[in-house]
Amino acid sequence: MFSITVRDHLMVAHSFRGEVFGPAQRLHGATFVVDATFRRPQLDSDNIVVDIGLATKELGAVLADLNYRNLDDEPAFAGVNTTTEFLAKVIADRLADRVHAGALGEQARGLTGITVTLHESHVAWASYEREL
Amino acid sequence: MFSITVRDHLMVAHSFRGEVFGPAQRLHGATFVVDATFRRPQLDSDNIVVDIGLATKELGAVLADLNYRNLDDEPAFAGVNTTTEFLAKVIADRLADRVHAGALGEQARGLTGITVTLHESHVAWASYEREL
Amino acid sequence: MFSITVRDHLMVAHSFRGEVFGPAQRLHGATFVVDATFRRPQLDSDNIVVDIGLATKELGAVLADLNYRNLDDEPAFAGVNTTTEFLAKVIADRLADRVHAGALGEQARGLTGITVTLHESHVAWASYEREL
Amino acid sequence: MFSITVRDHLMVAHSFRGEVFGPAQRLHGATFVVDATFRRPQLDSDNIVVDIGLATKELGAVLADLNYRNLDDEPAFAGVNTTTEFLAKVIADRLADRVHAGALGEQARGLTGITVTLHESHVAWASYEREL
Amino acid sequence: MFSITVRDHLMVAHSFRGEVFGPAQRLHGATFVVDATFRRPQLDSDNIVVDIGLATKELGAVLADLNYRNLDDEPAFAGVNTTTEFLAKVIADRLADRVHAGALGEQARGLTGITVTLHESHVAWASYEREL
Amino acid sequence: MFSITVRDHLMVAHSFRGEVFGPAQRLHGATFVVDATFRRPQLDSDNIVVDIGLATKELGAVLADLNYRNLDDEPAFAGVNTTTEFLAKVIADRLADRVHAGALGEQARGLTGITVTLHESHVAWASYEREL
Repeated sequence: MFSITVRDHLMVAHSFRGEVFGPAQRLHGATFVVDATFRRPQLDSDNIVVDIGLATKELGAVLADLNYRNLDDEPAFAGVNTTTEFLAKVIADRLADRVHAGALGEQARGLTGITVTLHESHVAWASYEREL
Repeated sequence: MFSITVRDHLMVAHSFRGEVFGPAQRLHGATFVVDATFRRPQLDSDNIVVDIGLATKELGAVLADLNYRNLDDEPAFAGVNTTTEFLAKVIADRLADRVHAGALGEQARGLTGITVTLHESHVAWASYEREL
Repeated sequence: MFSITVRDHLMVAHSFRGEVFGPAQRLHGATFVVDATFRRPQLDSDNIVVDIGLATKELGAVLADLNYRNLDDEPAFAGVNTTTEFLAKVIADRLADRVHAGALGEQARGLTGITVTLHESHVAWASYEREL
Repeated sequence: MFSITVRDHLMVAHSFRGEVFGPAQRLHGATFVVDATFRRPQLDSDNIVVDIGLATKELGAVLADLNYRNLDDEPAFAGVNTTTEFLAKVIADRLADRVHAGALGEQARGLTGITVTLHESHVAWASYEREL
Repeated sequence: MFSITVRDHLMVAHSFRGEVFGPAQRLHGATFVVDATFRRPQLDSDNIVVDIGLATKELGAVLADLNYRNLDDEPAFAGVNTTTEFLAKVIADRLADRVHAGALGEQARGLTGITVTLHESHVAWASYEREL
Repeated sequence: MFSITVRDHLMVAHSFRGEVFGPAQRLHGATFVVDATFRRPQLDSDNIVVDIGLATKELGAVLADLNYRNLDDEPAFAGVNTTTEFLAKVIADRLADRVHAGALGEQARGLTGITVTLHESHVAWASYEREL
């Protein structure tokens, strides 16, 4: 199995509801360093997993819809705890939609899986892995 | 599949028996930067994999039983080479026991796997992955 | 010259005023990975720069007063852009106060300088360096 | 499942053919920081995955055959785009050959898998994973 | 003293002349992860060292003139060993020119120093530090 | 001012005397990831700070005299707390001796300073900086 990963980042405010979150129930924020991994069992005719330029561009576009925002005010996340692990799934699913729509190129239809990892600090990170 | 990882570290002395270890047969030491990863297929009702506060606390407790020690003197490891890969399993198994005992919270019973990675330097690390 | 550095982190919300900040004028957030460096020309009688346990504890205490907050609501920062470089100075100055108050131990009075670095992402960080 | 990983690096020139590569169609170069991971379900009689000294030596030998070269001039890669993901497979396959030839020791015959990851920058990397 | 640093990267081919370079006398290549640090004793009226957006843009522009090239073919470097330390100076000097030309904003004229660090691998890097 | 840095590592056991060290008074151990930085104001005739091959070799030789040992048993350190900051000075001084003896090449006599940094974990490191 082959994979390539590209890295970008996101800076957001949010708060959580539930005693389990302790002081993170207050409005605070995070930088998420985001790693998007694309997988396929065989390389395409250019000998790549996916066009790394398009992968970087589309990851940037997905993050731009979330970046420099207070996620508590986003209608898409109303009533939802926007935890690191939840956001990993949001980003993976949006990337999957873009793969299916052809935004990563025709040959990207051969991709079989995506993993998104969000690093919230030097001591904690979360991932979501899915098939395509 | 979702996962979250928390990082802590451990500083121990030990020695190895067997020619394969070369100069590491002498009493020496290591810092192990320890990454504990918890996995589950669906998030819990708080939208998390596990309470990251409890995960960090329990990892710290498992490491406190090993930290600042000469592992050659620990009865639990008598006659055993306490290699990086072996210690990864020790820590993963002890974390699994704590999950099963409810120390990471009731919802942590939905966890399905643990991976522990020990970084022994900038150029070498070892992992042990298991189910719960 | 000797130095030791300890690392911790901080997760805050804030917004900036001024066109130069572009989209960061919106309420957003950041994880700051914080490195606090303590300097002195000669080691103390224990052969150390400073008690690393106390340095870690006092850095943690300084960060606890800022952590999991919306800095826009903090009276101490009213009307101020809480940029990464500004926060580096705030943390360095508060650490300096604690050194002078003896919180890092009597021998820490021999410290001659502090540098605080805040990493806001994998591609940007800021520092403030001062004498004691 | 247990694994150990060792890290080394490689500095090469090359160029790519195909519009998808944009400016990378020009002769350029890369440092690849290479992580070689060896897996097995049970540790050997020394309580290790593989002799880390031999693993490091054999990875170094595989890289020495590629290092400080213009890959466009290597007969083994004539007419091939030597992408990061392709080179990950080349290195994994050559390590697998060495495992099968006994170069990593007799007990290394118990290894069941290899993954090779090549980091081409702080924002992009590729992996190839295979069984043994 | 305050500073901010932004990171980008560069992928080039080159060769060196001189026995001291051993196998690096052959045409090979490198990824340079580039950190550009800007310093000033006091923050500007926006409470920043420099507009991080402009700093990132101008660093990117300086690197674009070097990126995806064989430096042996660049007239600017004819007869010169384009070592890591030499390239750090080239990039620092070109950034200094842009600061002086006003490309980093009017307030950037208050900058007093620049340091550029090029990481050529996980085990080697070089820096050049200058005043403005 | 120019500098180059090379990285290697060291794995030792030791214990400390003094209440300030808490549990580190017990025999324990550490991996020290060691960064050795060499400085000079002008590059030599090869356009380098120092021969990176020789710098790496000599750093390796200095570390080999310390590696895989219990520092409590080393006559050179009898009655001394071998703290991270102290060891940074030991390594810097031994490198300085080698520079003066010509082991890093004739042109290395133009070096004007050395800094050695020892990373003892992902959250703590120490440095010693000296002139040549």
